[in-house]
Amino acid sequence: MASLLFRHRRSPASSLHLLRLLLQRPISSSSASLDVDVSHPTYVVWGANTGVGKTLVSAGLAFSVISRSPSSFLYLKPLQTGFPIDSDSRFLVSKITSLFRSASPPFPLLASHHALRASLPAARALPGFNEQSDSPCCYEETKIGGGDGEEVGSRLVCKTLYAWNEPISPHLAVEREGMAIGDSDLREMLHRCLGFGGVNDLGKEMSVWRVIETAGGVASPGPSGTLQCDLYRPLRFPAVLIGDGRLGGISTTISAYECLKLRGYDVAAIVLVDQGLANEAALLSYLRNRVHVFVLPPIPHDPLDDLKDWFCESGNVFDSLKETMILAHSKRIERLQDMARKAGDIFWWPFTQHQLVPLETVTVIDSRCGENFAVHKVCDKLDMIVPQFDACASWWTQGPDATFQVFFQIELAREMGYSAARYGHVMFPENVYEPALRCAELLLEGVGEGWASRAYYSDNGSTAVEIALKMAFRKFSFDHGIAVDSDNGIVDDRCYDFKVLALNGSYHGDTLGAMEAQAPSSYTSFHQQPWYSGRGLFLDPPMIFISDGVWNLSFPDAFLSHQPKDEKIRFHLRDELFCQTRDCSALAKCYSAYISRQLSQFSDNCPSTYIAALIIEPVVQGAGGMQMIDPLFQRTLVSECRARRIPVIFDEVFTGFWRLGRESAAELLGCSPDVACFAKLMTGGVLPLAVTLTTEAVFEVFKGGSKLMALLHGHSYSAHAMGCTAASKAIQWFKNPCTNINIEPEGRKMKELWDMQLVLQLSSLNGVSRVIAIGTLCAIELRASGSDVGYASLYASSLVQQLRKDGIYMRPLGNVLYLMCGPCTSPDICNQHLRNVYQRISEFKQSSGKGIR
Amino acid sequence: MASLLFRHRRSPASSLHLLRLLLQRPISSSSASLDVDVSHPTYVVWGANTGVGKTLVSAGLAFSVISRSPSSFLYLKPLQTGFPIDSDSRFLVSKITSLFRSASPPFPLLASHHALRASLPAARALPGFNEQSDSPCCYEETKIGGGDGEEVGSRLVCKTLYAWNEPISPHLAVEREGMAIGDSDLREMLHRCLGFGGVNDLGKEMSVWRVIETAGGVASPGPSGTLQCDLYRPLRFPAVLIGDGRLGGISTTISAYECLKLRGYDVAAIVLVDQGLANEAALLSYLRNRVHVFVLPPIPHDPLDDLKDWFCESGNVFDSLKETMILAHSKRIERLQDMARKAGDIFWWPFTQHQLVPLETVTVIDSRCGENFAVHKVCDKLDMIVPQFDACASWWTQGPDATFQVFFQIELAREMGYSAARYGHVMFPENVYEPALRCAELLLEGVGEGWASRAYYSDNGSTAVEIALKMAFRKFSFDHGIAVDSDNGIVDDRCYDFKVLALNGSYHGDTLGAMEAQAPSSYTSFHQQPWYSGRGLFLDPPMIFISDGVWNLSFPDAFLSHQPKDEKIRFHLRDELFCQTRDCSALAKCYSAYISRQLSQFSDNCPSTYIAALIIEPVVQGAGGMQMIDPLFQRTLVSECRARRIPVIFDEVFTGFWRLGRESAAELLGCSPDVACFAKLMTGGVLPLAVTLTTEAVFEVFKGGSKLMALLHGHSYSAHAMGCTAASKAIQWFKNPCTNINIEPEGRKMKELWDMQLVLQLSSLNGVSRVIAIGTLCAIELRASGSDVGYASLYASSLVQQLRKDGIYMRPLGNVLYLMCGPCTSPDICNQHLRNVYQRISEFKQSSGKGIR
Repeated sequence: MASLLFRHRRSPASSLHLLRLLLQRPISSSSASLDVDVSHPTYVVWGANTGVGKTLVSAGLAFSVISRSPSSFLYLKPLQTGFPIDSDSRFLVSKITSLFRSASPPFPLLASHHALRASLPAARALPGFNEQSDSPCCYEETKIGGGDGEEVGSRLVCKTLYAWNEPISPHLAVEREGMAIGDSDLREMLHRCLGFGGVNDLGKEMSVWRVIETAGGVASPGPSGTLQCDLYRPLRFPAVLIGDGRLGGISTTISAYECLKLRGYDVAAIVLVDQGLANEAALLSYLRNRVHVFVLPPIPHDPLDDLKDWFCESGNVFDSLKETMILAHSKRIERLQDMARKAGDIFWWPFTQHQLVPLETVTVIDSRCGENFAVHKVCDKLDMIVPQFDACASWWTQGPDATFQVFFQIELAREMGYSAARYGHVMFPENVYEPALRCAELLLEGVGEGWASRAYYSDNGSTAVEIALKMAFRKFSFDHGIAVDSDNGIVDDRCYDFKVLALNGSYHGDTLGAMEAQAPSSYTSFHQQPWYSGRGLFLDPPMIFISDGVWNLSFPDAFLSHQPKDEKIRFHLRDELFCQTRDCSALAKCYSAYISRQLSQFSDNCPSTYIAALIIEPVVQGAGGMQMIDPLFQRTLVSECRARRIPVIFDEVFTGFWRLGRESAAELLGCSPDVACFAKLMTGGVLPLAVTLTTEAVFEVFKGGSKLMALLHGHSYSAHAMGCTAASKAIQWFKNPCTNINIEPEGRKMKELWDMQLVLQLSSLNGVSRVIAIGTLCAIELRASGSDVGYASLYASSLVQQLRKDGIYMRPLGNVLYLMCGPCTSPDICNQHLRNVYQRISEFKQSSGKGIR
Repeated sequence: MASLLFRHRRSPASSLHLLRLLLQRPISSSSASLDVDVSHPTYVVWGANTGVGKTLVSAGLAFSVISRSPSSFLYLKPLQTGFPIDSDSRFLVSKITSLFRSASPPFPLLASHHALRASLPAARALPGFNEQSDSPCCYEETKIGGGDGEEVGSRLVCKTLYAWNEPISPHLAVEREGMAIGDSDLREMLHRCLGFGGVNDLGKEMSVWRVIETAGGVASPGPSGTLQCDLYRPLRFPAVLIGDGRLGGISTTISAYECLKLRGYDVAAIVLVDQGLANEAALLSYLRNRVHVFVLPPIPHDPLDDLKDWFCESGNVFDSLKETMILAHSKRIERLQDMARKAGDIFWWPFTQHQLVPLETVTVIDSRCGENFAVHKVCDKLDMIVPQFDACASWWTQGPDATFQVFFQIELAREMGYSAARYGHVMFPENVYEPALRCAELLLEGVGEGWASRAYYSDNGSTAVEIALKMAFRKFSFDHGIAVDSDNGIVDDRCYDFKVLALNGSYHGDTLGAMEAQAPSSYTSFHQQPWYSGRGLFLDPPMIFISDGVWNLSFPDAFLSHQPKDEKIRFHLRDELFCQTRDCSALAKCYSAYISRQLSQFSDNCPSTYIAALIIEPVVQGAGGMQMIDPLFQRTLVSECRARRIPVIFDEVFTGFWRLGRESAAELLGCSPDVACFAKLMTGGVLPLAVTLTTEAVFEVFKGGSKLMALLHGHSYSAHAMGCTAASKAIQWFKNPCTNINIEPEGRKMKELWDMQLVLQLSSLNGVSRVIAIGTLCAIELRASGSDVGYASLYASSLVQQLRKDGIYMRPLGNVLYLMCGPCTSPDICNQHLRNVYQRISEFKQSSGKGIR
């Protein structure tokens, strides 16, 4: 019944034409969006080493799929060396057609083999090569059974994407034969081929498979030198690992398995060829419950053996492998489809009104890669994995970038594995271990340089602030002789009332102590925390922002009668506002007088109450709505407090570690605190860790003969090794021009990430009331009024949903939108998204003008 | 000058005698203390695969060391298969003596090769084998140059520890030839050999090296089946990895490198043999800044080549490798020696009076392995790495055990690497990703089973408690119509004063909100936190404990006039106290009446104040001094609060996840809360994560039309993927009888870990006032008085220092000592340390009786 129609036929004109069309489509060099259809089983076949039988397994699997029922199987070999003598995709076609003929299933097969790109030496080795052709390639098609009619059959599409002649690693082949390919170009070509070849055009009922076979071992380099395990990471297809049955193969198989895990891949199965050493027993024992292990019979040594018997003997194994892969695939998809509902049932999300979150707006995140989430979506009944730019930097924590070759996320992952294996967590007090020490050294050489000498670890910004307050209050007590006896011992006397000096719009965290130090806000109502009372003197600060294309200085009402006449309030450059020469201006004197007046009034009104600490977020208030404070005002605050021996706390939880373009915002501000809090970006964005840095003078007041004098605040995982390891890595990574392309060569400054022209244009849009752009942050306040203003506003909802569809994940603060990237994100990526936002906001303004509300 | 004295001489009688003596020393089967001298460079040579040249590198390195100046080189091959045809240690002696003769350094060499244990088939293959001998072994010694006199020369000691005949993996060789060896026996043998062989007996001035060569690849199984990378982990010697220069070798080398990193090893160098593929270039590019890469010239293919020329040609490479290894070693040792001082200079330890921490008491932790720290110490001028049992479970967080084959710490490390690579961290609110979902499911099926339906993630116990309070207060408001308008909207009205009902001795964390819910204590003085006021009604609870060999029930003074007459206050079994039949006793009525009375008195005295939540640590108060509360009293508290619609919070941060022998202490108590907090052990002890579980009824009161009704509390890394991944793994690991030997087969209970006879004896010691032993905890209060009692007491200091010398790391709560293990720690280990503690306490009592203070 199965009859040969075409065998090893050179590609017909029509196919060649199609191919030419395909090849003429431009390949962008940017890391464009890689939406991936995961409706059908799609696997990458990896090898524990070279020569372990990847292609045999791909062939066996393909045969198992297409010979049982009419189905489509797409096999891609992105990188082939040794071509055309070696061609895994041709091998597949040849073996499977031969097996198909022997097995004679009652339906036809159309099999094709297609090499898309070849280096010149590889192309020259092809029969019929024509030097004039600009696209050397070959195409072969074989049909078995069926007439010319419409009979439903199986289809096997095998493609080699890039081929080189010498049988060496692709990166060497590129050196010797040319045809260099960038990583993102290769991923795009692969991505395109996954959707091409007619596989998806076939009836929905037909089972469709896609298998990508890598070259060499898991960590063999691709053409650019990037390891293949890193190269294919943005697609994160599930893996089948071909293990090694030879002596030493247990080791290489387990190592390769872990190499894949260490890049976030899921391994569905390990398959190995029996070499008489029962390696599978050791693998099964070690990998128990984690992955299935399959063993194939020994491969005949005779090179003339056509392997028909071997494939026949292996049939059951391939069938089981196929079932395992189908099961893993469908479990994954079912889970992805079910996750939003389950989340709605059992999660209690922070800062979220569950009643306002319909199921369909829940984002199902399959993974993260650099700055992007990989999000599951169902589009036209297809399950897709779609990248979304994490424009909120996941609550301002994220540092990873997706530049390959130096892939920060994988670097951190390896460090995390190492640290967990070396230390897990160990007790901190009175102990020392390398990550905690190294991290403290780096902190004191970095954000603490020039002022700090002690590091106090905790878990998050809120705890770091509570610790800072305790430090500052004790220092104030001692400096002012409050509740201190003659021997500088301590007296427990609660007749003193300590308050902080702080700014309206401030935010320092959600634990009560941190809340008490912030001004009343949406977060502090009775129903949020009945114990909140707001233990501070809260001042209205002067703000700066861009509107209508220029930087503006805006004074609060309290200043109206006091601000100097003719004060310049419009600036063309942000730097003018940060210039320290402003310290001698009339405005500086005005600020100083204002602060003095406020402090005097306060102490007159509350005689038993002391302002025992200043606490500010230097330069930008984050959760308060991305407000930029006049740096001159903050510098004046600091010097007024210094003059009164009031300890100064900088809450740099948001601003620290290059968030605003300098390692610390204190550097930008041009003055130092006594105590400063850091967290968020400190670990590069993988896990929580915070630190409170302080001067030796503050540390000294906690010394004494009794433990009760010590600072009795700590958390179980204080200075946990993994956090400190991540922080050590991140602190160095961010500031090093070799790993962070955004750092200027002298190393203390980050280049401008946002296209300032575009930012100015944005600020001129009718729908925009103000913009701030500094460092990794570009915040945009939408012009709104009434209940559309403020934290609880839903004004931006439709805009945000639209941007998510565009691939930008935002989480606004009411009517304030922001784009936030990591310190290493390239300006290209920033501006690509900024243009998108610009576009959507201009449309939004128009439509909202037409009466959205 | 160098002249042959002995060549391949069979071992003389004296050596054999020595060996026999050595072999007669018993090898303990327990995992005994492995103090390791790290004064001299000591490396493990690993292979990326089998046959990559480990032995050639060991030989080249040995020659470089011993031929430049008189020095000692100990080479150990723990596992040799293919013996005696293959013997890497004999190869080393033969190659090096031959090279030494050619090079003729101006000093003599004494080289020996020694095989200690062989399987019967391997021994039979030795010439002169005698079936009667019980210790088949062989010894060969070669001397080059020097007379019989005292001339200082080099010494090469090469030993094969265990040898099998077939050239297969050791685990298969054991199957086929016998001579099974347990992992800890192997480590002990290795440990003993490292100190044996005269290497350390030589002059201090002489350079001394030790190299251990593994068998096969990094993850090849040892004789028990445990992978060698896991097997040698407790020693954690730095590594030299022999890479693979062949096709595919970049991949196997990088995978092997990562496999070592994922077990916490430091890799000082990668060495590979040039195979013409320039693999080193790709390795250098990828591993840049992380590890040195060395390339050796191609090895001659001619099997008859004696490799003399090759070694000669490789001399420079081996010299550089040696220098790199010396540098890495001395950097490590210098750092270890310097760390305590640096820590004292820049750390600010929590809960630590720095003035009371002399430099010499700072513990330098090199790593952790299961329940043990590996601590650096200088003993007799030797740098040692010494294990110390982490008896405080690093502030009650630790879960890893050191049972190999199923090594929890490495499992967690792999999961951490995977999670960091797959997710890093991603935004939680309105999103879902697998680790957060899986963890929530497991929590609700586990500690939340039967009552909880929502999971609210945060970072630590303190934040979990702050969240719990906010939940409970809102629920109370709604249930009692306080500050709620007619539409069930919310009203911001601060005329209501909310307080908690709690117990004296309670502790809920160090952030202000958590502190406010606990009774005044050492932690809450004005100088610790001037804002603390203690917002609770704090009751004195009845306590239970063992003293003089029986369980006692002790009532606070408040009960004196009310407690029932003839109430039983002494019990022989702890279970009697937990028996729910006590709910019907007269005592239960007495408790109930007492609580009602207290609540009424309180509301009479403070009319505008509400008891809006009950918060207790069920069963045991941790930081309050390891106090066990009468469970009947706590159950009564819960039911009294339920009757008054006061929400009930269980703070299970300390007690949760098998700490007390059940998954939750609520289960032990026999009643459920409305809200419960978990942290610490939840992640298995690697990194911070907390959760507040709650009922749907509590969740519902936060629903509404506005975001301002939502619970506005969150931390940046809410539900971070790594924490949730670790928690998912740990929750399952702890409760599964297959992974946790302590879980009874039916799975809901842990077996008794502490020898209760010994515990009762301990409670009868004069120096001990009370003991509690339950689950993983055995706490001992030392009899003391005056300032020797309480948190700030230094009474136990000398005892604690003595126990640290014994290898038990304790951190007491004043005069309360405790031993705490992980849920998987074997009772053997627990009782080994308990016996030690018993011994030291009985001595301490005697000496303190003689007037220590």
